[in-house]
Amino acid sequence: EAAVAAPTAAPQAAPKKEKKAVKYELKVPKGTKDWADKDMVVREAIFDTLAKVFKRHGAVTIDTPVFELREILAGKYGEDSKLIYNLEDQGGELTSLRYDLTVPFARFVAQNGIQAIKRYHIAKVYRRDQPAMTKGRMREFYQCDFDVAGVYPTMIPDAECLAIAVEGLTSLGITNFTIKLNHRKILDGIFQVCGVKEEDVRKVSSAVDKLDKAPWADVKKEMCVEKGQPEEVADKIGEYVQHKGSVKDMLEWLEGDAALMANESAKTGIEEMRTALPFMESFGITNYLSFDMSLARGLDYYTGIIYEAVTEASAPPTEEQKAALKAAAEKDGKKKKKSKDDDDNSENVGVGSILAGGRYDNLVGMFANNSKKGNIPCVGVSFGVERLFSLIKSRPGLMEKVRPAATQVYVMSMGGGPEYTGFLAERMAVTHKLWEAGIEAEYMYKTKPKYPQQFTAAEKAGCPFAVILGQDEYPQGLVKIKELGLGEESDRGTDVKIEDLAQILKEKIANKTSSVGEVQKLLKDFTL
Amino acid sequence: EAAVAAPTAAPQAAPKKEKKAVKYELKVPKGTKDWADKDMVVREAIFDTLAKVFKRHGAVTIDTPVFELREILAGKYGEDSKLIYNLEDQGGELTSLRYDLTVPFARFVAQNGIQAIKRYHIAKVYRRDQPAMTKGRMREFYQCDFDVAGVYPTMIPDAECLAIAVEGLTSLGITNFTIKLNHRKILDGIFQVCGVKEEDVRKVSSAVDKLDKAPWADVKKEMCVEKGQPEEVADKIGEYVQHKGSVKDMLEWLEGDAALMANESAKTGIEEMRTALPFMESFGITNYLSFDMSLARGLDYYTGIIYEAVTEASAPPTEEQKAALKAAAEKDGKKKKKSKDDDDNSENVGVGSILAGGRYDNLVGMFANNSKKGNIPCVGVSFGVERLFSLIKSRPGLMEKVRPAATQVYVMSMGGGPEYTGFLAERMAVTHKLWEAGIEAEYMYKTKPKYPQQFTAAEKAGCPFAVILGQDEYPQGLVKIKELGLGEESDRGTDVKIEDLAQILKEKIANKTSSVGEVQKLLKDFTL
Repeated sequence: EAAVAAPTAAPQAAPKKEKKAVKYELKVPKGTKDWADKDMVVREAIFDTLAKVFKRHGAVTIDTPVFELREILAGKYGEDSKLIYNLEDQGGELTSLRYDLTVPFARFVAQNGIQAIKRYHIAKVYRRDQPAMTKGRMREFYQCDFDVAGVYPTMIPDAECLAIAVEGLTSLGITNFTIKLNHRKILDGIFQVCGVKEEDVRKVSSAVDKLDKAPWADVKKEMCVEKGQPEEVADKIGEYVQHKGSVKDMLEWLEGDAALMANESAKTGIEEMRTALPFMESFGITNYLSFDMSLARGLDYYTGIIYEAVTEASAPPTEEQKAALKAAAEKDGKKKKKSKDDDDNSENVGVGSILAGGRYDNLVGMFANNSKKGNIPCVGVSFGVERLFSLIKSRPGLMEKVRPAATQVYVMSMGGGPEYTGFLAERMAVTHKLWEAGIEAEYMYKTKPKYPQQFTAAEKAGCPFAVILGQDEYPQGLVKIKELGLGEESDRGTDVKIEDLAQILKEKIANKTSSVGEVQKLLKDFTL
Repeated sequence: EAAVAAPTAAPQAAPKKEKKAVKYELKVPKGTKDWADKDMVVREAIFDTLAKVFKRHGAVTIDTPVFELREILAGKYGEDSKLIYNLEDQGGELTSLRYDLTVPFARFVAQNGIQAIKRYHIAKVYRRDQPAMTKGRMREFYQCDFDVAGVYPTMIPDAECLAIAVEGLTSLGITNFTIKLNHRKILDGIFQVCGVKEEDVRKVSSAVDKLDKAPWADVKKEMCVEKGQPEEVADKIGEYVQHKGSVKDMLEWLEGDAALMANESAKTGIEEMRTALPFMESFGITNYLSFDMSLARGLDYYTGIIYEAVTEASAPPTEEQKAALKAAAEKDGKKKKKSKDDDDNSENVGVGSILAGGRYDNLVGMFANNSKKGNIPCVGVSFGVERLFSLIKSRPGLMEKVRPAATQVYVMSMGGGPEYTGFLAERMAVTHKLWEAGIEAEYMYKTKPKYPQQFTAAEKAGCPFAVILGQDEYPQGLVKIKELGLGEESDRGTDVKIEDLAQILKEKIANKTSSVGEVQKLLKDFTL
C-alpha cells in the first residue's frame, strides 16, 4: 500500500515546460484569499464567540443573497459606488455583489414590512478596492454586524449596541480598548453654532474626523486652506472638537454651554446622551467610553449616536513613529509622488478601528418608498472581524496552541512478526465505536503501519489520547488508553475492556477540556 | 415612549402612486432568497450537525473566495459551463462565481502542493439555471462537502466517506435511507463486455442512470433509438444493470461472471469493492447500502466508487403517481410543448438524492500541470443540504417547536401607581448580570411597560423563564423567578436574592435543556 507521497514540486516551480495543453496559473483573484489551517480555526472561533454574544441578547440571524438587484445598491455609497462589483449581463436582471450588510438588511426590513427585529449577520462583502494586502484592504472580506430595527424610546437599543460592543470585545480577550462616542446632532449643532454653512458641513466634518491621526494645526489648515473656512470659524470649531472625556463630565460641560443649548440640533443630541447615561451605567460600560467631540465617522447615513472602538495596538502611530516609518520607506526607495490621496494616512495607521457603528434612521425609509410607516429607525454595530483576527493572531504564544483539527483520540495498532496484520479493519471498528459516542477520533490510512509512525502522527496532530490495539491484547478484548503530549513523564497507559472504552475516554476528555470550545477559551486566555 | 408601530402596508401594495423620485421594486434576484426566522435556525442546526460529524473524523475546514479566475472553472463542467456566472469585466482579471466547491478544492490542493488533507466546506455556489423555485433549483444555494485528498491504500478513505454519509444522515434524524453504490470501473467493464463502443460509453451510461425513474423498456428504447445501440447490445446491458443487492451478494454474483472477470477494468473495480467490504462491515453501515448496477452518476470526473443516497420521501414517484401528476397538470391547463428536455423527469421526482459522491482521481492533476507528483487522488461526499432542509422542515410538529431566538430569560417589571417607574435602568442592570453569566436574556424596550404586555412578549418568544422586578421587592434586593409556558399549572414563582439570581437560573436552565444545541436535538428527535 502506498504511503503518503513525497512533497511535490510546487506547480509554479516548473515554468519553462509550457508545451502541454492547458497550463494553469494557480492563484485566487486579486484581493481575495483562501482561508485554511489554524487561521481558519481562529477565525471560526471569533465568529462563534460573537454569534454567541448576539444570541445572548436575543438576536436572530438572517442570510441574504450575495448579489442584489443593482438598483438596490445604487446611490447608497456616494463616491465609493465605483467600487461595486457588477455581475456580467448574461440576460435577465442586472445584479451586483453586496458592498456591505447594512443596505441588504434595510432592503430586507422594508421588503418584508418588518416593524421590529434584532438581527446579526456574519458574511462576506465585496469592494473593488485597490488591494494593498499588507494594509488589510481586501476585495472580499467578512463583516459581522448586529443591528436593531424598530421604533423604541430614545437610546434604549443604542445603549444595548454599546453593551454588545463591550461584551463582544471582552469575550475575545480584548480589554484594553476605548469606545469613542459622539452624536451627529451635537456635531451638526456645533458646526451651526460655529458658523459653518450647511453645504460645507460634510467636508468640515471629514476634516474633524482626522483629529485622531493629525494635530489640530494640520486639521485647521485643511479646513481653512482646502475647505475654505474662515479662520475664526475654524478656531471656534477647534475649541469644541478637541474636547473629550467621560460621558458624565462631557455632558456637564456641554450642558453648561449656553450657545450650544440654544441650538435645537445640539440640544436634542445632548438630551439624548443624557438619557443614555443611566443605561450605560446599568450595563457597566462607562469605563470603556470616551465622549470625543472629534469623532465624526465617514458614512453619510448616520443620524444619531456614532461610535468607534480602538485599542492601543490598533491606534494610529505617534508623530515619531510616523517619522520613523517615513524614513524607512524613503530608504526603501519607495518615495511616492505627492498626490491628492496624500492626506490619507491609512498606510501609517495600525489595524485601525476594531468596531464601529451608530444610528441610521432613514435608510429603511429610502426603500419603503416614502411610506411613513415603513420608515423603521435602526441602530447597529459592526465588528471589524478581519482586524480583530490580525490582533488576536499576533498574541504571543496563541497560534502555537491552536490545533487545525479537533481529533481527541488516535487509534493505533502495535505488533510485529509474520502474524501481525496491522489490524486495519479492527482499528476502523474501534474508531467507529468512538464516533458513535461522539468522540473525535482518527486512525492511520495504512494497512500495516508501524507503531512509532502512528505515534508520531498522533503527537503531531496534538491528539491528547491514543488507543492502542496490541497484537496479543486486542484478541482478548482489551485495548490500551495512553495520554499523549506528556513529554518526559510519559503515560505508560491503562488497559481497558473494549466495551468500556468510549465511556472512559469521554470522561478523560471532559476532564481535559473545558465545556466552552477549546479555541474560544484560548482566545479569552491569550490576551495581550 | 412609542410602542411598536402598526403593521405597515407592504410597499408593493401601492403600485399606482409612482410619482415620487425613486420607487424601489423590493425583491431579491431571481433564483435567490433571503433566509430568516425559523428556517434559518433549522438550516444552521443542519450545518452545525454536519460540521460536527466532519470534525469528529478529523476534518479541517477551508474557505475559498466566492469567485475564481475564469480559466480555473473553464472546461470543468461540460455543457453546464453556460450556467457559470461571470463577473463584469471592470478592468483587471476575468473572474466567475464558483459553480461548486469541488473545483475550488482541487485548485487549492494543487496550488498549495498539498499531499494529504481531509477537509469539509459548507458554502454557497452559483448556477444560472432557469429557476423553478418549487423544484428546489436555485441560482444561489449551499453545498456541504467532505473530501479526502491523498495517496492511500485502496478504498480506505472511500469507506470513511460512506461512514460519514451514514453518520451525517442519522445525526439529522434521517434513518429510512438507502445509499446506492456502484463503481465506474465495473460499469465501464460491463459496457466493454456488452460491446458498447468507447465513444458511446457516456451516452449509454446516462441512459442507464435513468433506471431509477423509468422501466427498463423505456431505457432500452432510448439506447436503441436515440443512442443508436444494436438491440443485442442493449439486451446484454439490461441483464447486468437491472441487478442490485447487498454488497456481499452482488460481489459473489459479479465474481462468478467469467466474462466480467476477464475484463481488466471490471476486475479491478470488483477487487476494489471486495477490499472495501470488511471496511464497510467495520463501520457498521452495510445495512444502508445497495450495490446497484444501474447507478451511473452524471459527472464525467468520477473514476472509482460512486454513490447516491435516497430516502422514501425523496424517491422518484411510481408510475401511478406520475400518471396522477400528469393528469393534474393537464387539468391545470399547463400542457407543455414536447421538447428536447422532455426526457428530463426532474419535475416529477421528489426532492431527489439527498447526498452523492465518489472517487475522482484526476481533477487535482489537471491543475497540477501534469506534474506526476501533483496528481493527488480524491474521494468525497456532498450532502444535498437544501433537500435535507426540505425533508426536515416537513416533519410534522417540528417547526412549531423551533424558536427563532435563543432567549432563555425575560426580565420584567411589575407595579403600578404614581410611584411606579417601570424600572427600566434596573431591568437593564439585572439583564446585564445575566449576560455576564452567559445567560440569554432580554427585556422590553419600553420605559414603563405593563406587566401583562411583558408576560405576553416572553411567552410569545417561547422564553422558559421570567425574572420579575416587583415594585416593593426589588428595593429590598429580591427578584422573582417564574417558569413560563406551563399553561394551567402556572408557576407562582420563587423570590431570590439578586446576587444569587444568575447561579440559580443557570441551574434551572441546565435542567431544562440538553447539552447539545436545542435545535440539533430537535432534528434528531423529530424523525419521520
